[in-house]
Amino acid sequence: MNNEKWLLGIDIGGTSVKLAFVTEAGDILHKWEIPTNTENQGKTIISDIGAAVSEKLTELNETKEKLKAAGVGAPGPVNTEEGLLFEAVNLGWQGTIHLRDLVQEQVGVPVAIENDANVAALGEMWKGAGLGAKDLICITLGTGVGGGVIVNGDIVHGAKGAAGEIGHITSVPNGGYQCNCGKTGCLETLASATGIVRTAKDKLEGSAVDSTLRQYLQNNDLTAKAIFDAAKAGDQLALETVDSLADHLGLAIANIGSLFNPERVVIGGGVSKAGNILLEKIEEYFVKYTFKPVAQSTKLVFAQLGNDAGIVGAAWLAANKN
Amino acid sequence: MNNEKWLLGIDIGGTSVKLAFVTEAGDILHKWEIPTNTENQGKTIISDIGAAVSEKLTELNETKEKLKAAGVGAPGPVNTEEGLLFEAVNLGWQGTIHLRDLVQEQVGVPVAIENDANVAALGEMWKGAGLGAKDLICITLGTGVGGGVIVNGDIVHGAKGAAGEIGHITSVPNGGYQCNCGKTGCLETLASATGIVRTAKDKLEGSAVDSTLRQYLQNNDLTAKAIFDAAKAGDQLALETVDSLADHLGLAIANIGSLFNPERVVIGGGVSKAGNILLEKIEEYFVKYTFKPVAQSTKLVFAQLGNDAGIVGAAWLAANKN
Repeated sequence: MNNEKWLLGIDIGGTSVKLAFVTEAGDILHKWEIPTNTENQGKTIISDIGAAVSEKLTELNETKEKLKAAGVGAPGPVNTEEGLLFEAVNLGWQGTIHLRDLVQEQVGVPVAIENDANVAALGEMWKGAGLGAKDLICITLGTGVGGGVIVNGDIVHGAKGAAGEIGHITSVPNGGYQCNCGKTGCLETLASATGIVRTAKDKLEGSAVDSTLRQYLQNNDLTAKAIFDAAKAGDQLALETVDSLADHLGLAIANIGSLFNPERVVIGGGVSKAGNILLEKIEEYFVKYTFKPVAQSTKLVFAQLGNDAGIVGAAWLAANKN
Repeated sequence: MNNEKWLLGIDIGGTSVKLAFVTEAGDILHKWEIPTNTENQGKTIISDIGAAVSEKLTELNETKEKLKAAGVGAPGPVNTEEGLLFEAVNLGWQGTIHLRDLVQEQVGVPVAIENDANVAALGEMWKGAGLGAKDLICITLGTGVGGGVIVNGDIVHGAKGAAGEIGHITSVPNGGYQCNCGKTGCLETLASATGIVRTAKDKLEGSAVDSTLRQYLQNNDLTAKAIFDAAKAGDQLALETVDSLADHLGLAIANIGSLFNPERVVIGGGVSKAGNILLEKIEEYFVKYTFKPVAQSTKLVFAQLGNDAGIVGAAWLAANKN
């Protein structure tokens, strides 16, 4: 009989809650997910988590005694010290919720909470592309652009928890696209999946140049993936779109580099699936725009854990923040 | 007889070495300076420091027994853990020097070393404009533009000690001025004293507009101070120069804010003497370019310690890093 206790990692998203039992060394033993029930203002989400954990333990012939601690990633700003989640509109939750204590009641072990982008960054630090690094930046290129800043092995939160808002770096000072945050010219308006599509759309509408992307636009199904595929096939307009994206990302990462000189910048999220065609271009602009000692010591890498980054980072929280 | 021991703060500059005996609470008891003898590759600088400390103790009827520890700020990249200074061309020193151990031999107490811009930032955090803040960024606008990044009460060094290189943030991605670092468009090329003069000069040479600054240019004594004075007196070209400077600084600080959300951004150095005409403009652009929660929680302030920041920060090192 193995006496080693398990860490419980919980990653709450708008569609599903991902859960995992993880060893103290960070290895996933069992992982599963349950749907996020956002009905009735998400009232049952936390009790659903409690029930799911109990059931899974029973299924594995274990009890809550087997658990050491739990960590939770949540989609909204948090106060980690007080265990508060301020807003999580995606979950139907309104106002401030004492997430830490509510989860603790359900799982019966100490709980630590953190914002989901930060949890993903911690996961990559612990077992992914950031392995062994104590200073790293994670950038997630998805529907939006998120980030996590890790200095000396821990997340930087800042004065009001607004550190790591990489998506809201101003990349176009004047005349940029409107961002949901109220500003214009945010990196997110250019480097998110929707931003890339918008860039290509503007290029298509602004010229009569021949491009395989024009058909997608007419069919109303132009996607970031279609743009990267076209770029790989040599489509000039698609290549220009990728070049523009890489220019903005390379500049942002260069300036992040001059501030932190992190060991690694980890790039993840759906857009990063574009692969080397994207990474090589970003690196080119990064080297152009950054201070030479930074270019020589800060490495750009892709995230490695995919959807598991959240549960692994949550387990790290469980191990280190309780 | 007071039994409290003293901290020794040493700030080595290219012209003078500033020294101080400081209480453990950070109050300066005695401060003085000696010239930096850069002759013979700066060979006597460290023994000069040793002699100056001994003499001053004797003058005050004290001995080395009175000292608890020492901190040193030095003008070059350092490895704080090993106590190494890599390059200090301003001092005449060539190659890597084991600064910590060499000073320790002279003063007979434990020594910690740090880069001078970082030491100034620590000084402002301890007893100046950063008082009470644990997350702050210091920007020094002088002949160049330097910086220090403090997270959770301590300096961020980064992978190769190149964190905090705020002067080398790329502010003009294409077509910017050449920087000494090898890149173009660095913030330093625009926001340093020389950068401001260059901007005004370009404006004067690019137009025939009437300006009180034209006379300075003809006399070859156009300075940052003259530009700020003219701006205060309402000179249009000078106002445009200050506006351009504030635009670049406001953008850089906004993007720093979106990454760190520091409690305070402390602006120091000779250029900051321009006062509110500069700060108000920087704030205007900062608010324009930054994420709203950051604009609401990150404060912009001027440095308070002036030339004492280095010795106070060095004393902080003495107290906290030995």
